[in-house]
Amino acid sequence: MDNSKIKQHISQQFNQEMEELRNKVMMMGGLVEEQVDLATKAFMSYDMESADQVVLQDHQVDTLEKEIDHECTDIMARRQPAAYDLRMLIATIKIITDLERIGDEATRIARMVMRLEGTDYYQDKYYEIEHLLNLVKGMLNGALDAYARNDVEEVIAITAQDAKVDREYNSITRQLITQMMEDPRNITRALDMLWTARALERIGDHSCNVCEHVIYMVKGKDVRHLSREEMERTINSVR
Amino acid sequence: MDNSKIKQHISQQFNQEMEELRNKVMMMGGLVEEQVDLATKAFMSYDMESADQVVLQDHQVDTLEKEIDHECTDIMARRQPAAYDLRMLIATIKIITDLERIGDEATRIARMVMRLEGTDYYQDKYYEIEHLLNLVKGMLNGALDAYARNDVEEVIAITAQDAKVDREYNSITRQLITQMMEDPRNITRALDMLWTARALERIGDHSCNVCEHVIYMVKGKDVRHLSREEMERTINSVR
Repeated sequence: MDNSKIKQHISQQFNQEMEELRNKVMMMGGLVEEQVDLATKAFMSYDMESADQVVLQDHQVDTLEKEIDHECTDIMARRQPAAYDLRMLIATIKIITDLERIGDEATRIARMVMRLEGTDYYQDKYYEIEHLLNLVKGMLNGALDAYARNDVEEVIAITAQDAKVDREYNSITRQLITQMMEDPRNITRALDMLWTARALERIGDHSCNVCEHVIYMVKGKDVRHLSREEMERTINSVR
Repeated sequence: MDNSKIKQHISQQFNQEMEELRNKVMMMGGLVEEQVDLATKAFMSYDMESADQVVLQDHQVDTLEKEIDHECTDIMARRQPAAYDLRMLIATIKIITDLERIGDEATRIARMVMRLEGTDYYQDKYYEIEHLLNLVKGMLNGALDAYARNDVEEVIAITAQDAKVDREYNSITRQLITQMMEDPRNITRALDMLWTARALERIGDHSCNVCEHVIYMVKGKDVRHLSREEMERTINSVR
């Protein structure tokens, strides 16, 4: 092979490595999405099997995190990437940290459900929890999608959802405190609902973090700790 | 200058850059330690000034996080480090994420204290919260010390404290639930204590994460999600 062919070959190999990495992150993301859904539904429907499943999946998620992390460092050491490629690797390392924490929050809900085994099923419509679940599922899905498509078009709309999540969470908290005061027999159940709502609220935060890492990856700008307006201006200033 | 002098000069410059980076992380760590202490004491003594201070410091912490992050990526792009140097940069990026989250937990406590302004001060000895605070302060301090000294000697002892933190946290939770059930007028105060205890428990978790990143930096081994025994064996197997 002449020199240009070797170069082409190396760059093809590199692209393939980056593509495989991206696929692995998406696989991890898919597992975590499933965990969030399963754990919350296990809580609402008192479903021990789903709770078990969430805990089992957490090991897979942890293993994937370590693998992806290792591959990123390995590519950095071997390929010494710059510009977009380096940013993509750094962003990936950060994104999987947030994904792993989302998995942890889901696992926390699942373990709580497992401790309920043998107690009476608490009949409730769980409208608010379900609404909160749907909001954060949308955020997480959108964040993963932005990463997969390398596109920040939808990111502002996703992070805007976080204010809704916070409002919903605060309203659930107030409602539950009232319930507890009205009847102290509600306290343990209300606390379980409070922890579940809190976990979902945190999952929303982590999904926002993923969005910020995607912006860094695509646009090369660090938008953490900025207001939504500043974030939007920053994204639009870099084309 | 001859070639070897240029090389020496470059390597001296590099070492200096790494040293400055380490100092900046320690500065960020010092700020975060102060936040944890101030926020918890603000809660126990109903001290609005300290609570303000914590929120103010959070901006400094956020700024330092962005700066250090930027410097790490910049060194990676310019110097293309390998082996220990690359690990140190990766570990630093992860450590400051955990430090920033610790700052967030402290800020969460502080904001809660600020919302109490104008309400009656709740007289309590706060023995358990104070004990929990001392435990996690010790862990955070030990973790930062391990990073500064590049030494994993004490790390197993630090992560062992986490089991104590969890026990203490569980005992506080049980006690508070009993108090709430006995007298519903205690509910809002008990919930505030619960959030504070939960934040401290999380700070313990993040301190453990910092320890794990230090092990990766020093020993080149990823010990996340291992049991304490496996972690100890791994550390001792790499000398």
